[in-house]
Amino acid sequence: MFNFKNDYNYIGHENILKALLIYQNEPNEVYGLDQHSNNAKKLIKQQLKNENVDIHFIVGGTLVNKTVISHILRPYEAVICADTGHINVHETGAIESTGHKVLTVQNNSGKVMIDDVKKCIKIHTDEHMVLPKILYISQSTETGSVYSKEELKDLYEFCHMNNLYLFVDGARLGVALATDLFTLEDLAKYSDVFYIGGAKNGALLGEAVVIVNDELKDNFRFSIKQSGGMYSKGFVAGIQFEELFIDDLYLTLGRNANDCTKYLYDQLVKRGFGMQQEFITNQIFPIVSNHIYEKMKELVLFELWEDLGEKKVIRLVCGFKTKIEEIDLFIKELDLILN
Amino acid sequence: MFNFKNDYNYIGHENILKALLIYQNEPNEVYGLDQHSNNAKKLIKQQLKNENVDIHFIVGGTLVNKTVISHILRPYEAVICADTGHINVHETGAIESTGHKVLTVQNNSGKVMIDDVKKCIKIHTDEHMVLPKILYISQSTETGSVYSKEELKDLYEFCHMNNLYLFVDGARLGVALATDLFTLEDLAKYSDVFYIGGAKNGALLGEAVVIVNDELKDNFRFSIKQSGGMYSKGFVAGIQFEELFIDDLYLTLGRNANDCTKYLYDQLVKRGFGMQQEFITNQIFPIVSNHIYEKMKELVLFELWEDLGEKKVIRLVCGFKTKIEEIDLFIKELDLILN
Amino acid sequence: MFNFKNDYNYIGHENILKALLIYQNEPNEVYGLDQHSNNAKKLIKQQLKNENVDIHFIVGGTLVNKTVISHILRPYEAVICADTGHINVHETGAIESTGHKVLTVQNNSGKVMIDDVKKCIKIHTDEHMVLPKILYISQSTETGSVYSKEELKDLYEFCHMNNLYLFVDGARLGVALATDLFTLEDLAKYSDVFYIGGAKNGALLGEAVVIVNDELKDNFRFSIKQSGGMYSKGFVAGIQFEELFIDDLYLTLGRNANDCTKYLYDQLVKRGFGMQQEFITNQIFPIVSNHIYEKMKELVLFELWEDLGEKKVIRLVCGFKTKIEEIDLFIKELDLILN
Amino acid sequence: MFNFKNDYNYIGHENILKALLIYQNEPNEVYGLDQHSNNAKKLIKQQLKNENVDIHFIVGGTLVNKTVISHILRPYEAVICADTGHINVHETGAIESTGHKVLTVQNNSGKVMIDDVKKCIKIHTDEHMVLPKILYISQSTETGSVYSKEELKDLYEFCHMNNLYLFVDGARLGVALATDLFTLEDLAKYSDVFYIGGAKNGALLGEAVVIVNDELKDNFRFSIKQSGGMYSKGFVAGIQFEELFIDDLYLTLGRNANDCTKYLYDQLVKRGFGMQQEFITNQIFPIVSNHIYEKMKELVLFELWEDLGEKKVIRLVCGFKTKIEEIDLFIKELDLILN
Repeated sequence: MFNFKNDYNYIGHENILKALLIYQNEPNEVYGLDQHSNNAKKLIKQQLKNENVDIHFIVGGTLVNKTVISHILRPYEAVICADTGHINVHETGAIESTGHKVLTVQNNSGKVMIDDVKKCIKIHTDEHMVLPKILYISQSTETGSVYSKEELKDLYEFCHMNNLYLFVDGARLGVALATDLFTLEDLAKYSDVFYIGGAKNGALLGEAVVIVNDELKDNFRFSIKQSGGMYSKGFVAGIQFEELFIDDLYLTLGRNANDCTKYLYDQLVKRGFGMQQEFITNQIFPIVSNHIYEKMKELVLFELWEDLGEKKVIRLVCGFKTKIEEIDLFIKELDLILN
Repeated sequence: MFNFKNDYNYIGHENILKALLIYQNEPNEVYGLDQHSNNAKKLIKQQLKNENVDIHFIVGGTLVNKTVISHILRPYEAVICADTGHINVHETGAIESTGHKVLTVQNNSGKVMIDDVKKCIKIHTDEHMVLPKILYISQSTETGSVYSKEELKDLYEFCHMNNLYLFVDGARLGVALATDLFTLEDLAKYSDVFYIGGAKNGALLGEAVVIVNDELKDNFRFSIKQSGGMYSKGFVAGIQFEELFIDDLYLTLGRNANDCTKYLYDQLVKRGFGMQQEFITNQIFPIVSNHIYEKMKELVLFELWEDLGEKKVIRLVCGFKTKIEEIDLFIKELDLILN
Repeated sequence: MFNFKNDYNYIGHENILKALLIYQNEPNEVYGLDQHSNNAKKLIKQQLKNENVDIHFIVGGTLVNKTVISHILRPYEAVICADTGHINVHETGAIESTGHKVLTVQNNSGKVMIDDVKKCIKIHTDEHMVLPKILYISQSTETGSVYSKEELKDLYEFCHMNNLYLFVDGARLGVALATDLFTLEDLAKYSDVFYIGGAKNGALLGEAVVIVNDELKDNFRFSIKQSGGMYSKGFVAGIQFEELFIDDLYLTLGRNANDCTKYLYDQLVKRGFGMQQEFITNQIFPIVSNHIYEKMKELVLFELWEDLGEKKVIRLVCGFKTKIEEIDLFIKELDLILN
Repeated sequence: MFNFKNDYNYIGHENILKALLIYQNEPNEVYGLDQHSNNAKKLIKQQLKNENVDIHFIVGGTLVNKTVISHILRPYEAVICADTGHINVHETGAIESTGHKVLTVQNNSGKVMIDDVKKCIKIHTDEHMVLPKILYISQSTETGSVYSKEELKDLYEFCHMNNLYLFVDGARLGVALATDLFTLEDLAKYSDVFYIGGAKNGALLGEAVVIVNDELKDNFRFSIKQSGGMYSKGFVAGIQFEELFIDDLYLTLGRNANDCTKYLYDQLVKRGFGMQQEFITNQIFPIVSNHIYEKMKELVLFELWEDLGEKKVIRLVCGFKTKIEEIDLFIKELDLILN
């Protein structure tokens, strides 16, 4: 059975597993105050070309989102995101569980448009309504699209003129970076806080939260601890981010995911598959007849994205471990189905 | 530098690290619905001699405590624990952050006494006060003591006659089990929900929450997801608990920690060290003069437990990786200091 | 200056004020356990033709909504309402502040349609999303429309087949009842919990929460106290509801508000004013040119409802104290403007 | 039946009831933006001799406490109070329901001692524990004691040197002021925020929150609205505080409560009653035999304060409406019991 269901179904990259073996006899400081974590932070800062950021490792994207957003907001303040935003749909009300309303604007291919945010702000006029204070975006977005450097810059400047913080969810930052539409350096310039997702790009676990804006730095470790995100063996996360940021492994893995996905995309298009949207990163959305859908289910694991009645949109995803050969094999078997 | 500072400063047991390597090319179901997790649950249930429990893997003790307690309680209900309880002192108000009061009773060598709980319940008479609904204990406790089977049974029966659920925090369950004062089977009989801590007993991460009481089982995965505790690569936790529950590794590691600690304890007593309390599990509390204290700081990492003015109580901890040889070496160097 | 801005700008009905004077020398039980509250509950139950309900007096609609919803929901559960619902827009995230997501469906003239609720339930498929558990509607709605007895029955039955509780916000229940489209008896049959709003229908303060469904009754006074809604001088609310439910005063005041509004509506239509929607209860929405708008602002207090660019929709409201003579005077002066 | 059970069992002072009648035909701005509220604020500021404070009217002490404390604190911050503090014991976990831990220090006759607060701060050393940020005291305290001007000053200065805000709960501020141990002016100098309780000193409802510290003023109306404390008919509270602050009525009512209580206290002492503590304000705590206790229960309503086994401590309270004649009558009948 082939598996294009998601990008977090393998344990982790071999370099990381090897490193864990290497360091197994070394006692460490706990709670993220260890040398591996410090070193990983140093490596990340080099890539950001910014020494003046605070970096913290937390396990799990939902936990990062909860911790960052509840750390920033006053009780009556709210976060704006796309209607497709992960915090809006797929976190079981985790943000609301910290007391905050999630305001939504309609997504445009997964992205947030400035004009829509403007309207959202405008209708929140007084104390009978929540006060929008954070704009949350994902890079790449839920549907695989990516904000360019220009778009990031525009959003960031808009935010700062409108008393909003810009928070970038980087659960899939690796594949976003691999598009070369922006760099980590850009991100550190054009956001207040963001995170570098590990678990979807080669790590067993762990996300690196980067706080750029000085106003948001104080006491963040209190917020991590309270949210339940302070990993006792923080060095295990540290070791992984060390590996990911040595020799550009993080970027390399993102590129692999994208390259494989592009190859798969092209093969499918060549065979006449319609696509719900253009290829951008490691998620693609072929439109298949119900007949083909049923046959494919026996061949490969994937996610049903949308049921259009006579047709279905499915999602195929490649990851850090996908190989071109695997796709070739898949296509070969797919051809048997199609003919 | 020797290191008796805590029991979670090593990555994890070699069997676990090896298993991670072995399975690295295997794609898995995500969010804990994988075969490794299922298998680990089966192994645990065998030890509990109880098939009718729900088991969930969550990363981090604070997160387990938050998730379990907020899953159970209605907004106006509260949890009772010892004043030394981890949820009371060392989780940055994590329980309160979910909206619930933590009521305390005075600890008796780290344990909770039934009479004190009785008093606590009795003064909560009406709707102007919170309604106590959970009794939270730790096994072993914050100071290393252990409830015997009889004590567990008494507490459990008391709880059920008083409309309380009994929740047992097992962050250090391994060393508690190694005392043979109770078994996992007993725990599954005499509690409503408990957890088996991995991170302090050989795992990189992960705790296994065991829900015994049917009333508490519904929709627990919603609570895990909302709290931020749903680990995307749940199989990484599953693999570890498979290893821990093959050939009694979990118990073996707990025994090692206790045996080493006992050995260390005896060596110190032999050398005239006073102890704040008797040896029970893997934490001991020698009382040292300020002079010795300063000298020891150059020799070994440990925690300052209490400053008595002219003397100090320190905490020494052995873990799954500690070896008798290491202690012998330490004692040798300690003797040089003492003489 | 005329004042059609809202229906809560007068202290309260004279019967109520007189009653307060009469009882000023009488000491009472506190926290709502007094004879006046008991008597008021009895009077209300008679009108509901249902003895088996719990009634509680709380001060303020937002507080009622917070208390009821947070009392019912488990942390991961959510409430569905119209996008125009008061809890969604005009309570500064009060529901979210208790930890719960507010899910919205598009309103249809202020009302919620069963098909939209169906869709909302359908897309919430698993533990990665919140679990819808309450349907919240307002009677009358934010725009003055009213659910008929049949509509209430359908919604209620739909809710119960779909594991939802139906909660009816009756901040403006007086004018809704005055339409004769349903009765209090119907409401007690076709809802799980609702409230009878006092402050917008003659009382100084106070809303009567009626819990119909036995499952929701336990420990509600704990929830009231915790939310801050337990009015120490509960008898002050009790006295007011006694007055409101003697000789049908509550209904009479609702009728007065509607009759005056209808009269005003007809006068305006006669003079060629367009209306955004038909008259139903005590809120009407004339469409006026910007020119007339500016002139009217000098004559009368009202609320700007929607800016259509060249025209504006305004809201005019009559209340328990409005008199036909007042409207005649207003129309006379309006005619001067119009000509 | 005599009634010395509490100080909020009468509707309100006649001046207030009369004023409500007088203004019944006057339409008002809503949500506290009306002329009566503005005027009441002006009158209060004159007594504070401080124009630079923000004043807001909220209904209910618990709601004030929730609103103020959750407005100030970051999620990981905590409030310190006496173990007898109202927020600790008698608000059903209302503060915790907003996510914050309530830390306690032992009370000294109901008061908080600086040394105890010092210790509490000292043990909160890092991010594994909550961060104390508010010191909450009551004036008068739960047991009727009062902080003198000097004590207030010392507490305030201590707080500011230790990065704490001082919040003074003035549910019973009237009787506290009547001791002449401090003035409203002092309170506005030596606190960051406090409230002037109306409901226990002549008002039907309403407490005036006075924010002194500029850092705490921003967006407080958002917090009021979210907490459910924004009274739609704010002018009803405004009218009452106008009356209370005309001709020193507020102070006069406090004096009446104290004078009557003192008279009652003296009469009881004269008859050989022991007292748990000296008279200070309007709560006294006679110690009675079980025999007398039972007899008194047939004569007068009061609260059982503490059961000492063979004896009982009861609480007697006088209020704004108590008259010396009433006490004389009571004592007369009491003498019959005693003899």
